[in-house]
Amino acid sequence: MTTSILPPKTQQNASDKKTDALKTPAHRSAKDTRFEEDARDLHRILPASQKVYIQGSRPDIQVPMRKITLDPTPIQGVDESDWEQNPPFYVYDTSGVYTDPDAQIDLTRGLPKLREGWIAERGDTEQLSGLSSSYGQARARDITTANLRFSHIDKPRRAKKVNGKAGNVTQMHYARRGIITPEMEYIAIRETQKQHELTDMRQHDGESFGANTPKIITPEFVRSEVAAGRAIIPNNINHPESEPMIIGRNFLVKINANIGNSALGSSIDEEVSKMTWATRWGADTIMDLSTGNHIHETREWLIRNSPVPIGTVPIYQALEKVDGIAEDLTWEIFRDTLIEQAEQGVDYFTIHAGVLLRYVPLTANRLTGIVSRGGSIMAQWCLAHHTESFLYTHFEEICEIMKQYDVAFSLGDGLRPGCLQDANDEAQFGELRTLGELTKIAWQHDVQVMIEGPGHVAMNRIKENMDLQLETCSDAPFYTLGPLTTDIAPGYDHITSAIGAAMIGWFGTAMLCYVTPKEHLGLPNKKDVKDGIITYKIAAHAADLAKGHPGAQARDNALSKARFEFRWDDQFNLALDPDTAREYHDETLPKDAHKSAHFCSMCGPKFCSMKITQNVREYAKGLDASESLGTEAMSAAGIEQGMQEMTEKYHSEGRQLYKEV
Amino acid sequence: MTTSILPPKTQQNASDKKTDALKTPAHRSAKDTRFEEDARDLHRILPASQKVYIQGSRPDIQVPMRKITLDPTPIQGVDESDWEQNPPFYVYDTSGVYTDPDAQIDLTRGLPKLREGWIAERGDTEQLSGLSSSYGQARARDITTANLRFSHIDKPRRAKKVNGKAGNVTQMHYARRGIITPEMEYIAIRETQKQHELTDMRQHDGESFGANTPKIITPEFVRSEVAAGRAIIPNNINHPESEPMIIGRNFLVKINANIGNSALGSSIDEEVSKMTWATRWGADTIMDLSTGNHIHETREWLIRNSPVPIGTVPIYQALEKVDGIAEDLTWEIFRDTLIEQAEQGVDYFTIHAGVLLRYVPLTANRLTGIVSRGGSIMAQWCLAHHTESFLYTHFEEICEIMKQYDVAFSLGDGLRPGCLQDANDEAQFGELRTLGELTKIAWQHDVQVMIEGPGHVAMNRIKENMDLQLETCSDAPFYTLGPLTTDIAPGYDHITSAIGAAMIGWFGTAMLCYVTPKEHLGLPNKKDVKDGIITYKIAAHAADLAKGHPGAQARDNALSKARFEFRWDDQFNLALDPDTAREYHDETLPKDAHKSAHFCSMCGPKFCSMKITQNVREYAKGLDASESLGTEAMSAAGIEQGMQEMTEKYHSEGRQLYKEV
Repeated sequence: MTTSILPPKTQQNASDKKTDALKTPAHRSAKDTRFEEDARDLHRILPASQKVYIQGSRPDIQVPMRKITLDPTPIQGVDESDWEQNPPFYVYDTSGVYTDPDAQIDLTRGLPKLREGWIAERGDTEQLSGLSSSYGQARARDITTANLRFSHIDKPRRAKKVNGKAGNVTQMHYARRGIITPEMEYIAIRETQKQHELTDMRQHDGESFGANTPKIITPEFVRSEVAAGRAIIPNNINHPESEPMIIGRNFLVKINANIGNSALGSSIDEEVSKMTWATRWGADTIMDLSTGNHIHETREWLIRNSPVPIGTVPIYQALEKVDGIAEDLTWEIFRDTLIEQAEQGVDYFTIHAGVLLRYVPLTANRLTGIVSRGGSIMAQWCLAHHTESFLYTHFEEICEIMKQYDVAFSLGDGLRPGCLQDANDEAQFGELRTLGELTKIAWQHDVQVMIEGPGHVAMNRIKENMDLQLETCSDAPFYTLGPLTTDIAPGYDHITSAIGAAMIGWFGTAMLCYVTPKEHLGLPNKKDVKDGIITYKIAAHAADLAKGHPGAQARDNALSKARFEFRWDDQFNLALDPDTAREYHDETLPKDAHKSAHFCSMCGPKFCSMKITQNVREYAKGLDASESLGTEAMSAAGIEQGMQEMTEKYHSEGRQLYKEV
Repeated sequence: MTTSILPPKTQQNASDKKTDALKTPAHRSAKDTRFEEDARDLHRILPASQKVYIQGSRPDIQVPMRKITLDPTPIQGVDESDWEQNPPFYVYDTSGVYTDPDAQIDLTRGLPKLREGWIAERGDTEQLSGLSSSYGQARARDITTANLRFSHIDKPRRAKKVNGKAGNVTQMHYARRGIITPEMEYIAIRETQKQHELTDMRQHDGESFGANTPKIITPEFVRSEVAAGRAIIPNNINHPESEPMIIGRNFLVKINANIGNSALGSSIDEEVSKMTWATRWGADTIMDLSTGNHIHETREWLIRNSPVPIGTVPIYQALEKVDGIAEDLTWEIFRDTLIEQAEQGVDYFTIHAGVLLRYVPLTANRLTGIVSRGGSIMAQWCLAHHTESFLYTHFEEICEIMKQYDVAFSLGDGLRPGCLQDANDEAQFGELRTLGELTKIAWQHDVQVMIEGPGHVAMNRIKENMDLQLETCSDAPFYTLGPLTTDIAPGYDHITSAIGAAMIGWFGTAMLCYVTPKEHLGLPNKKDVKDGIITYKIAAHAADLAKGHPGAQARDNALSKARFEFRWDDQFNLALDPDTAREYHDETLPKDAHKSAHFCSMCGPKFCSMKITQNVREYAKGLDASESLGTEAMSAAGIEQGMQEMTEKYHSEGRQLYKEV
């Protein structure tokens, strides 16, 4: 793999001046070496893994998956070449070409523009002569940020006008016209996960509360879900580098990782590094929540290099433009910000259009008020101007902008609860109902919509959230932050919220926004990002299993089989985090010989229960148990006879319940 | 505090030879300094905390709690002496006298024998002239283990005979005779948690699925729950050092931490250190699952120094006595082991009496067979002898032993599922039904019983476990291991299982057995123990909240209020893990000045939503919103007028939505 990341210090080239500038944030903490990773570590492919591509109906549809190769199952007394082969296992892969050894990576040039041809062949967009937003133009001319700027920016695309009016290039627009786009086919292949090649597809029935999760996902199914608004494909025409993905209740539950600098920490290269790190571990989308320096430039670097959709909260940047004085915000500044960000390629916007003036007083008696940044900004604006939010009053104009680039709405939950006491109150549910109304308006413009949700909610009050959202928002996808199921564990809020996230994912939530151990305390570092992602992959997968998503249990089966057969390397390699699993095992049994050991340090060789289970199977086989496993079906005489035979065999074979390798 | 733990190396005294021996396990890993803590760190009381005792109806009932002192709420422009006082917060405290600065601690002498007087005054026990078990006697004479032995062992107590038959001294026996013991009163005070002194008792209704959780727990309520078998008080008359606690659906959900050495790691002092560490962080009981060296001696040290009940799995030690050959086990060896352990003071025994011969073949087609150590040992024995388990056939004799010391049953789930595919199968549920039958037999002897449960179970199949257990086991308390809700995350199984544990606790499980990050991979170290405990405190508390346990939400309210008011120290100090919360915050904002900062590094000063919420409250107050908070009730004219007034005030006061300190 030819990798030229932000060049290591040993190399000198023209971009050094730029990359040095990227490493200098306004305020740097003492530990500023934390992101200066060895490039090899960041992009090292996971163990026993290989990037493979599944071709669709045309050669330019190449859907990535990660193929994990497994060891054979040892059979005692049998030549190794005759051991039971375990076929490779394929997993969904969000890491992009970073883990493709054949790819040439140059962060200063960005990723391959994978969707460029599909966008062009639709013939409904045009490349503009320059940026449309005033701010974007001003920034491009700004000498002081020149050294931070991504060099190879294409002129943006936008929908061609149709009969003098703004055109519409959203995936929903195509879907509603019966068109199956290459993106939809790509997604169908991606979601199906090569299930026909899985060995152990056993799983138990789920309870999906009315979801519809077919065994094989077809491109037509994708189209119909998008047309109905039950799912969204977030992919701005100006982010052709993204690998298409879908967010919807009838697809795999997805997770989002938040990154972004603040005035008090982090730099552009740290944020890019967090993004590639996050997608390596499984983030399906990334939100750039920067509030610090150089929001515009940071975002450009991220989008050009991100294989996953990027979301933002445009009001943050708009607020920076008015020096943090919320009441100085105007619709015009916000509108310009939307266009600026859409032309860079942001795939979805969080917009708190449901924070209405009349809901604001409903937060007066709350214990923790308004905890959403965007929500409190808009509340402040409404108070200062004593008038309805411009996000609400100009909502249709926002739709008009978004449809021309295919930016999706993430209708923000500005009034979500920040503690258990505030959960499910009038402010929160009032806003949710308004988001339902706004969804219908957006759909009149074929603009894709997902709905954001809480927050902090005790377990017994979670389902009410899901039920109300389904009812009021016409089945638009739900995208929640947790929820946290208790407030008493700062430092562990990835866990307090994983409980709620798993449950609400089970009930129908389509995407779960991660929470890191740093929640409530500070900006997450790289380890926090990974901890948050693995935790949320757990929650999303637990939800898929409980829903009975077809094929979800295959990975659990494969890993459990490896565990039972003491194929330690396979157990680690099939895990969500092979590195940590291996490292923890090696803390007490580091030698490679132990990787075939039929025990671990938990119990030692005498006590391992898996070690002494094997003969039970032999015994039961002897009783032809596969045909008569019911308790009633086994006659006392049959048991007696079978046991006698087995006892004789057991003693004659050396009294080993478990046959050693 | 006068502390003489295993003496630090700088001191020389008579017990040095012994303590050196305690530090040398059979096999020591390279990192063997990990438990040689500075004694001050181990027993340092948590921040802003003080041990307090609540006296009961008699002076020798002194119930410990931890009192957390809080800062006042700053009010701008008001003298500090007039700030709003926040009363101290009291939390349930499992840490014993280790966190009492007035206590004299000497691990070589053991803890104060708190219950000794209560046991003696009942007059129904006698001190024996020596140990009753052959093994115990042999061990006491064994020169080679002399240097490991706890020196100050009292002769054991046992129930006096009644009319020539074995006496009965269980708490259930007393409860069923209408007797309220001092232990029951102690527990009532402990469970009530000084609720009448809590400030913010607001919480939402729970859904407890039929539990009965009264606002104030009385000693009579405790008695009636124990009499009915719905709760157990695990306290062997030979463990008078333990602080009484209760395990039952109608009480706070409890957690257990497993410790114990194996042939491949850990020493006696490491295990004692893990025990005091675990109780410091909140473990309600400890199980000593040692399988390695010196099980007998290790256990003695643990019991003599443990403020919480200790559980064991006697079959492990019995197996050691026959050199690990399961088929060489006999009822006699097992019986002797029960007596040996009961006379040391073990408070509950895990006994896999439900692993019946007929269930064993039902595991033949399982993916991971039998994962319980005890279960697989008994399965092996049954096969070898082609006869029913001696645990089952001698069950009443076991009851006869246990009632004489008040050891409780933890009826083991030897056939629990080790992966999602095996969950809820015939083997597992068959065993559960047998445990239900055995419960009734135990209750005929007034022996206390709790029932162990799974394991690995997908979320949608968890409630079925709880419902079946309630139905078949006559409401005996349920004690589960997780369950893990997916198999794919070794290294993170504390999280995969926290999801299931929180849910099954909500549904009615009384105690949750923790899982550490090392599950499936190796023996947990000290950090793993803490991670497991904090995670399970989260799960248990989330369950209490969802059940609507009275007063559960008070801590969430207090912490959220501190968070909202930027009382950072209070937020940390009220957290389950104040050290980590503070450490994470300080990573990016370490200066003490920042502890009053009205922001953190997540968003910085301009963006903090809590920072800009304050004026919303003012505004709504101005509208007399507390009387007319309904959307409908606020007339447009009223809103308009109120807003105009507030806008004028807002601008005149310097346009700060948030008043700075």
